[in-house]
Amino acid sequence: MAVPPFTRPRRLLPLFLGLFQGALLLFFALFVTYDEPSAQAEDTNLVANQVYSTFPFFQDIQVMLVVGLGLLLTFLPRYGFSALTHNFLLLNFSMQWALVLQGLLHHFHHGQVQLDLHKVLTAEFAAVTVLISVGAILGRTSPCQLLVMATCEVPIYLASEWIIVTCLGVLDVGGTITIHVFSCYFGLGVSKVLFRAAQQPLHPKETPTPRSDLMSLVGMLILWVFWPSFVAVLCQPGDAQHRAILNTLLAMSASAITTVVASSLLEKDGKLSPSHLQNGSLAGGVAIGVVADMAMPPVAALALGSLSAVACVLGFRFLTPLLGRKLVLQDQCGIHNLHGLPGILGAAASIVAILVASEDTSGSHSSQLFPTGGNASEVVEGQWGAHGVSGQALCQAAGLAVAIGASLLAGLLVGATLRLPCLAQPPKQLCFDDSLYFKIQDQAESPGPDSTTEEEGALALKEQV
Amino acid sequence: MAVPPFTRPRRLLPLFLGLFQGALLLFFALFVTYDEPSAQAEDTNLVANQVYSTFPFFQDIQVMLVVGLGLLLTFLPRYGFSALTHNFLLLNFSMQWALVLQGLLHHFHHGQVQLDLHKVLTAEFAAVTVLISVGAILGRTSPCQLLVMATCEVPIYLASEWIIVTCLGVLDVGGTITIHVFSCYFGLGVSKVLFRAAQQPLHPKETPTPRSDLMSLVGMLILWVFWPSFVAVLCQPGDAQHRAILNTLLAMSASAITTVVASSLLEKDGKLSPSHLQNGSLAGGVAIGVVADMAMPPVAALALGSLSAVACVLGFRFLTPLLGRKLVLQDQCGIHNLHGLPGILGAAASIVAILVASEDTSGSHSSQLFPTGGNASEVVEGQWGAHGVSGQALCQAAGLAVAIGASLLAGLLVGATLRLPCLAQPPKQLCFDDSLYFKIQDQAESPGPDSTTEEEGALALKEQV
Amino acid sequence: MAVPPFTRPRRLLPLFLGLFQGALLLFFALFVTYDEPSAQAEDTNLVANQVYSTFPFFQDIQVMLVVGLGLLLTFLPRYGFSALTHNFLLLNFSMQWALVLQGLLHHFHHGQVQLDLHKVLTAEFAAVTVLISVGAILGRTSPCQLLVMATCEVPIYLASEWIIVTCLGVLDVGGTITIHVFSCYFGLGVSKVLFRAAQQPLHPKETPTPRSDLMSLVGMLILWVFWPSFVAVLCQPGDAQHRAILNTLLAMSASAITTVVASSLLEKDGKLSPSHLQNGSLAGGVAIGVVADMAMPPVAALALGSLSAVACVLGFRFLTPLLGRKLVLQDQCGIHNLHGLPGILGAAASIVAILVASEDTSGSHSSQLFPTGGNASEVVEGQWGAHGVSGQALCQAAGLAVAIGASLLAGLLVGATLRLPCLAQPPKQLCFDDSLYFKIQDQAESPGPDSTTEEEGALALKEQV
Repeated sequence: MAVPPFTRPRRLLPLFLGLFQGALLLFFALFVTYDEPSAQAEDTNLVANQVYSTFPFFQDIQVMLVVGLGLLLTFLPRYGFSALTHNFLLLNFSMQWALVLQGLLHHFHHGQVQLDLHKVLTAEFAAVTVLISVGAILGRTSPCQLLVMATCEVPIYLASEWIIVTCLGVLDVGGTITIHVFSCYFGLGVSKVLFRAAQQPLHPKETPTPRSDLMSLVGMLILWVFWPSFVAVLCQPGDAQHRAILNTLLAMSASAITTVVASSLLEKDGKLSPSHLQNGSLAGGVAIGVVADMAMPPVAALALGSLSAVACVLGFRFLTPLLGRKLVLQDQCGIHNLHGLPGILGAAASIVAILVASEDTSGSHSSQLFPTGGNASEVVEGQWGAHGVSGQALCQAAGLAVAIGASLLAGLLVGATLRLPCLAQPPKQLCFDDSLYFKIQDQAESPGPDSTTEEEGALALKEQV
Repeated sequence: MAVPPFTRPRRLLPLFLGLFQGALLLFFALFVTYDEPSAQAEDTNLVANQVYSTFPFFQDIQVMLVVGLGLLLTFLPRYGFSALTHNFLLLNFSMQWALVLQGLLHHFHHGQVQLDLHKVLTAEFAAVTVLISVGAILGRTSPCQLLVMATCEVPIYLASEWIIVTCLGVLDVGGTITIHVFSCYFGLGVSKVLFRAAQQPLHPKETPTPRSDLMSLVGMLILWVFWPSFVAVLCQPGDAQHRAILNTLLAMSASAITTVVASSLLEKDGKLSPSHLQNGSLAGGVAIGVVADMAMPPVAALALGSLSAVACVLGFRFLTPLLGRKLVLQDQCGIHNLHGLPGILGAAASIVAILVASEDTSGSHSSQLFPTGGNASEVVEGQWGAHGVSGQALCQAAGLAVAIGASLLAGLLVGATLRLPCLAQPPKQLCFDDSLYFKIQDQAESPGPDSTTEEEGALALKEQV
Repeated sequence: MAVPPFTRPRRLLPLFLGLFQGALLLFFALFVTYDEPSAQAEDTNLVANQVYSTFPFFQDIQVMLVVGLGLLLTFLPRYGFSALTHNFLLLNFSMQWALVLQGLLHHFHHGQVQLDLHKVLTAEFAAVTVLISVGAILGRTSPCQLLVMATCEVPIYLASEWIIVTCLGVLDVGGTITIHVFSCYFGLGVSKVLFRAAQQPLHPKETPTPRSDLMSLVGMLILWVFWPSFVAVLCQPGDAQHRAILNTLLAMSASAITTVVASSLLEKDGKLSPSHLQNGSLAGGVAIGVVADMAMPPVAALALGSLSAVACVLGFRFLTPLLGRKLVLQDQCGIHNLHGLPGILGAAASIVAILVASEDTSGSHSSQLFPTGGNASEVVEGQWGAHGVSGQALCQAAGLAVAIGASLLAGLLVGATLRLPCLAQPPKQLCFDDSLYFKIQDQAESPGPDSTTEEEGALALKEQV
C-alpha cells in the first residue's frame, strides 16, 4: 500500500484551484482597473459618503456569509471543519468568478472593467447562490465537485438574473426570486441526479450532537441579526431603505415566534426540534426580500413572516420525508424548506402587493397616490407604467417560473456533470467526516486516528477486487 | 404509559404564543402604519441620514442581545440550547409586546401608530429588562412561566420608565436606573416568591464545564465590544455621543483589569474565577450608562468602572452566598452583582456628577460654564433650570428609589403568579436540561437518550402515588 | 502542605495590575480631559460626522482583537480560557498604557492631554503589537511575564513607530511594517532568550483537538471578515479609503484560495492542514497594509495576497521546523509565518509600487499623473517631493530594517528580563493548562480535578528536594 487511498483524488483540488487563480490573475492584469480617482474635493466627499453608506451593510453581509452561514452548516458533528472551510472557499471562488463574468458581460467598456465596492457586492450576491445550493448535497461531495458546481452555477445565475430583472422587469430588491428560489431548485436538481440511487439509510455520522446543534444555532442567530442588511443594501436610500429594514425586522420576528408554535404543535410530544428552529426563524427573511421596499402595511410583513415559518416547519415535517420517499430526493440541510417554499410564498406576496397597491392608487385617496415615496414613486410610474399594473403582476409570476424552471433544468445537467469519475465523489463510508480532507485528529476516542486510514485501505482494497 | 409525562405542559407554549401572535396581527392590521413617505428630495436625504446614523448602532445592539447575551447564559453545560433559544424567543416576544403597548400609550394619534426604527429600538430596550430578569431564575422555569413574566414585566417597565424619566426628569441615557436596576430587582422579587422553599442543594447539572465556561466567556466578550453602542445610541449626536462612547470605553476597560485584580485577591489560591470574569468585566458598562453623556473628567469613568467591578466581584464572593443563606434567595446568574450593585453605584455617581458640575458652573471659569456642549447645555439650562441643581440630584435619588421599590413589589406579585400550577414549573430533577423541551440527544454518553424519559416516567409515577 | 504550590506566584498578578490601575487613575486625574465641547451647531455636526465615519470601523477592529484574535488562539485544547482571557487582559492593559505614553509623548499641551476616539484608536494599534508578539510564547508563560512584556513593548513600539513614520517618512497606512513586522521579530526575540534550553519535545496538551481547531477557525473567519476595516480606518476618506478596502478584499480573497492550493500541494497525502488555513488566509491582509492606498492596479493586490499565502504556508512547512532545529526557536502560533514573512513581502511590494508609480508618472499619460487621487496627490507631491521617488523607496527599505533590527534587539533584552525568577514562569509540566490560573474543572475525565493539584504537589516536592 505505497500510496494511501484517496490521495490521488485530493490532488485534483490544488490543480483546479491553481489554474483558476492563475487565469484570474491574467484577466485582472489585462482588463481590470480601479475607477479614475476623483480630481475634485466634491467628488471625494461623494465617494467618502458612498463608502460610509455601503460599507457597514457590506461588512454585515460578509459576517452573515462567512461566519453565520458557515456555523449554520456545522450541525453535522464530525463535518464542522469541512462545512466552514468549504463554505469559505466557495464564497471566495464564486465571488472572484462572478467578478470576471460580470466584468465581461456588463461592465466592459473600452477594454477595461472598473472595479468598485458595488461590483464586489453584486459578485457576492452571485456567490450566495452557490452557498445555498451546496446545502442540498452537503457532506456527500468532494471539494472538486463543489467547485465544478460553482463554476457552472455562477454564469447560469447571471443569465437567469439578467432575464428576470432586466428583461422581465421583475421587482426583487432582496433577491427572493433571483437568489433564493433559483439556488434552491438548482441545488435540488443537482442532488437528484447526483444521488439517483435508491433511498439512502441514515449515515451514523449524520445525527447532530448537542454541541453541533448549539454551534448551528449560533450560526442561525448571526444570520438572523444581520439579515436586514442583506435585504436593504441595494434599496434606494431614504424611505424605501428604511421601510425595507423595518419590514425585514418584523417578518423575522414573526418567523421566530411562529416557528416555536409550529414546531411544538407538530412534534408529538411537544418538544421543539432544533432543525426547525435553525431554519424556520430565517424563513421570514427569505420571503420578505421581494416585497421589502414595496408600499404595504406593516401587518403584511408580520403575516408573511408567520406564513413562511409555518411553510418551512411543515416542509421539514412532511414534505422532505415525502420527497425522499417518492422522488428519492436528498436535501441534506432542507434548503427546499428554508429557501424554496418561503421564496415562492414571497413571490406570491409580491403579486398580491402590486395588485392591492394599484387598487389603492386608483382610489380616491390622493394622499396615498404614490405610497412608495419619492424615489419609489418613479418606480410606480416608470416600471408599472411600462407594463401596466396587471402586467407587473404577471411579470413577477413569470420571473418565478423562469427561476424555478431554468434552475431545475440547469441543476439536473450540472448534477450529471458532477458524476464524472474524475471528480472523485467520496464513497459512502467516508462521508460526513472531516478527516477525509483535513489533517484533523479523529473525533472518536476509542478507535484512534488510524481507523480512518484503515477504513480507507479496506475500501480501496474492496474497490480493486 | 400512553402519554409521555410532561407532554401536556409543553402544549401550553404554542397555545399561548399562537394566541399572542394572532392578537398582534390584529392590532397591526387595525392600527399600525409606516410614516408617510417623504415627498421631497431633502426629506429623503434626512431619512437616509437618520438610517445611516442609527442603523449601525441598532445592529450592534441586536448582536449584543441575540448572540452576546445568549452565549453568556450558556454556562450551564446541558442547558445551552435552551438558554440561547429562550433568550431569543423572549427578545422577540417582548419586543413585539412593547411595540403594542408603546403604541397604545405614547404614539396613538388619529387612530394610528406610525412605526419607525426609533420605536423598534425603544421596544428592544423594554425587552432587555426581561432578558436581564430571566437571569435570576434561569434553568428552573418553563418557557410558559418566562412568557407570562415577560407579559407582566413589559408594561410595568413602561410605567416605571414613564414615571422615572418623564415625571421625575431623571437623566439616564444608558438605562442604568430604568433598565438595569429595575430589571435586577424585578427578577430577584420573582425568584424570591417562586422558589420560596428552603435553600436548594447544588444541582449536579449546574456546574459549568470548561467548554460551557468558554462559550459564556465568548458571550461576555461580544457584549463587552458592543456595549458602547448600547449606551450611546440615544445620545444627542455630536459631542455628547462622542463623550458617551469614550466614557463607556474607559469604564469597561477599567472594569476588565480591576476584575482580574479583585478576583485574584479574593480567591484563596489566587486563581481567577470564570464567573467573576464573565460578569465583572461588564459591570463598568452597567454603571456608566447614567452618567455617560454628562460633563465629567475621563478619570471619573475609569474610577466608576473600577469600583463597579470591585462591587460585582465582592457581590459574587460574599453577598450572593449571604442572600442565599439569610433570605433563601436564588440568583442563578448573579444578576444582582452585575446589574444591581453597579446600577446603584452608577446612580450615586450621577448625583455626585450633577453636584460637582454645578459647583464648576457657578465658579468663575466662564469657559467651563456649559461644559456639556451645545446640545447638552440646553439640558443644563432646561432640565436643571426646572428643578435646580440640588433638585436634579434629588430626582436621580428618587428615580433610583422608584426603580428599586416598584420593581421589587411588582416582582414579588409576578412571582406569585408564576406559581400557578397551569404554568407547569419543571420538577427539580428535570431542571437545567435541554432535553426537557428540545428534541436533543442526551449529552451523557453512558445512560443514553432514554434516561431522561425514564427519569420523567419515574417522576410521573412518583407524583401519581 | 499548608500553602498549595504555585499560589504565591499567582499573587503577583493582582499586585502588578492593581498598582498599574492606581497609577493610571492618578495620571488621568491630573492630566487627561476631553476636548472642549463645540459651541456651535456646525462643529457639532462635524463631530457627529466624525463619529459616524470612524466608530463603525472602530467597532469592527474591537471585534477583531477581542473576539477574532482571541478565538484564533484557542487552538490549544486545554488552554482556551487562558488564551481568550490573557488576550483580553493584555489588550486593555496595553491600550491604557499606550494612552498614557502617547499622551506624554505627543499630545501634552499646556499640561493637558485631550482624549478623543482617534487617540483611543491609535492606542489600540499599539496594543495590537503586544497581542501579536504573545503568539510566539503562548501557553508557556505566566500572566505576569506577559504583562511585563507589554510594559516594555508598548514604549519600544511607540519609539520605533515614531522613527519609521515621522523621521523616515515611511508610508504604511495598514501597519504592515510598524505593527506586524515589528511585533513578529520582537516576539521571536523574546521567545529565543526565554526558552533558550535545548529543543523541547511536543507537550501532550499542545496537540489541537477537532473542537479546538474549529473554534480557532471561527476566530480566523472573524478576523478575515473585518480586516478591511483595520487597514482602511486611518486612510484619507474618499478614493484612498475606497481603494484600500478593495485592495484588502482582493488580497484576502486571493490568500484564502492560494492557501488551499499550497497546503494541499505540500502535505504528502493531499489533506489540508488546519494551521495553514487558520493563518494563510490572513497573510494577504498583513502584506497589503503597506500598499493598500497606493496607486496600483487591482491585479497587484491579488498577486500580493497569493504570494503571501504561499510564503506563509511554506513557512509553516519548512521554516518553522528549521528554526526550531537550527536556532532552537519556539514560535507557538507561527507568528513568523503570519506576520513576519508576509510583512517583509508587503514592504518589498511597497518599494516596487513606488518605483513603478513614479515611472508611470514621469510618462506621457497626463491623466495618470496623480493616480492616487485628490488627497493622495498631495502625498505624492509632498512626501515623495521631499525624498524624491528613489528616496521614498529607500525609506521604505530603511523602515523595514529599523523595524526588524530594533524589535529583535529589544525582544532579546526583554526576553532576558522575563527570566527573572520573581515573574514565576510556569514549569513545563503545568504548561498549556487553564487550571493553573483559573478555577476551572479539569478537562480530562478520568484523573479528575485533583490530578493537577497532585501534579503541582509532586512538582513542588521535587523542586524542594
